[in-house]
Amino acid sequence: MNDLFTYALRLGDDALIAAQRTAEWIAAAPQLEEDVALGNIGLDQLGQARSLLQYAGQVEGAGRSEDDLAYFRDERDFLNLQLCELPNGDFGHAMARLLYFATYQHLLYEQLLTSTDETLAGVAGKAVKELAYHVDHATQWVLRLGDGTEESHRRMQAGLDALWPYTAELFEADDVVRRLPGVAVDVSALEEEWVRRVHAVIDESTCERPTSPYQHSGGRDGKHTEHLGYLLAELQHVARSHPGATW
Amino acid sequence: MNDLFTYALRLGDDALIAAQRTAEWIAAAPQLEEDVALGNIGLDQLGQARSLLQYAGQVEGAGRSEDDLAYFRDERDFLNLQLCELPNGDFGHAMARLLYFATYQHLLYEQLLTSTDETLAGVAGKAVKELAYHVDHATQWVLRLGDGTEESHRRMQAGLDALWPYTAELFEADDVVRRLPGVAVDVSALEEEWVRRVHAVIDESTCERPTSPYQHSGGRDGKHTEHLGYLLAELQHVARSHPGATW
Repeated sequence: MNDLFTYALRLGDDALIAAQRTAEWIAAAPQLEEDVALGNIGLDQLGQARSLLQYAGQVEGAGRSEDDLAYFRDERDFLNLQLCELPNGDFGHAMARLLYFATYQHLLYEQLLTSTDETLAGVAGKAVKELAYHVDHATQWVLRLGDGTEESHRRMQAGLDALWPYTAELFEADDVVRRLPGVAVDVSALEEEWVRRVHAVIDESTCERPTSPYQHSGGRDGKHTEHLGYLLAELQHVARSHPGATW
Repeated sequence: MNDLFTYALRLGDDALIAAQRTAEWIAAAPQLEEDVALGNIGLDQLGQARSLLQYAGQVEGAGRSEDDLAYFRDERDFLNLQLCELPNGDFGHAMARLLYFATYQHLLYEQLLTSTDETLAGVAGKAVKELAYHVDHATQWVLRLGDGTEESHRRMQAGLDALWPYTAELFEADDVVRRLPGVAVDVSALEEEWVRRVHAVIDESTCERPTSPYQHSGGRDGKHTEHLGYLLAELQHVARSHPGATW
């Protein structure tokens, strides 16, 4: 498979699946202001997904559109991080995920700004500004919940802990990336700074730094948790009910 | 009850409940571009809801915030049109509702621009621009689905027919409005133009104009279909699980 296609697909799938989970939250956020914030974050993620999937289709050259790639691939063809597909859980979980994921995306897209691939650099240019807001939003909530009531602290800690075993995958070195020097970002080099930033927020929130002897992996190769299938069922249902519909 | 409070609440509840139904769609739209469009429409509706509920709370003077009004009122206290609370059904249903509701809101807010109440006029000023887009978006879809395949035509017609019995309520004359001359909009005067605009779209879509001998009513007095309770359960669940949470 074309490495650049795979690479664009991975980043696009991360954003698409994250957008889907964010959208699920919009209807159930605890404040109207938060509804709006999550709505904007979800739209940012969806915008990233569209640009990247459109580019992936173009690179592949098989005539697949962004919609073909989003709606007509099966579970094993999705290359997103498992972190993105996990169920929302409670609001503490959601904000833990956003902190982990947005911090990662922010670091990654900052590097992608200097990619020799102009399209990827262009996507990154728009995304880094959006991601600075996502990181800030997640940070504010982790601090507020962690340093809040006993109950909110307990839930925030539980969210941080539950998702930690899905964070090593973010930084796995990989042949696809190695075969795209100057184009793709070596994520393994980002881990130290990611841990530093995430720990700083966790420390200030008065939560404990999570640890885990076991780490999940496999999303980049299409191996997913049982949750992705359900997510795709909802995401793809309407489009698949009318394949090739031109209206 | 304070009439202005009631009036702001009605318009705010329309927008809030509509936003919730729109948000439910975002995760399941048939195209990524449509996901983005619905996301933006949902955020517009949520913005309208926030401004109006905030104002309602201020007018009431009992210290209730927009969140108090959104999350801690019971079903019978919601004053939205039943049209807004009906389940989404399929995409044809959703676009039929958006056509009916956005055309109504657009006509209403155009009149509200000249309200002697500066806050309501201000809300209207922002909303009319948004609503022109909502109407246009719904119109494009009704035309595309109605004048599309046999299947899409059948579904579009079904959506238009199913929701028609909930449209008379939009134009019911009412004492609350009559007691607010110059402030509130006499919606009964908008019906003719609304029918004209909606019929023009339906005609062009090659669908039949719906008719119904029976029309539902009661939303403005807090009488709702069985669907509102489920919607509120989802909308209010998180906030009610942590009443008074200050984080």
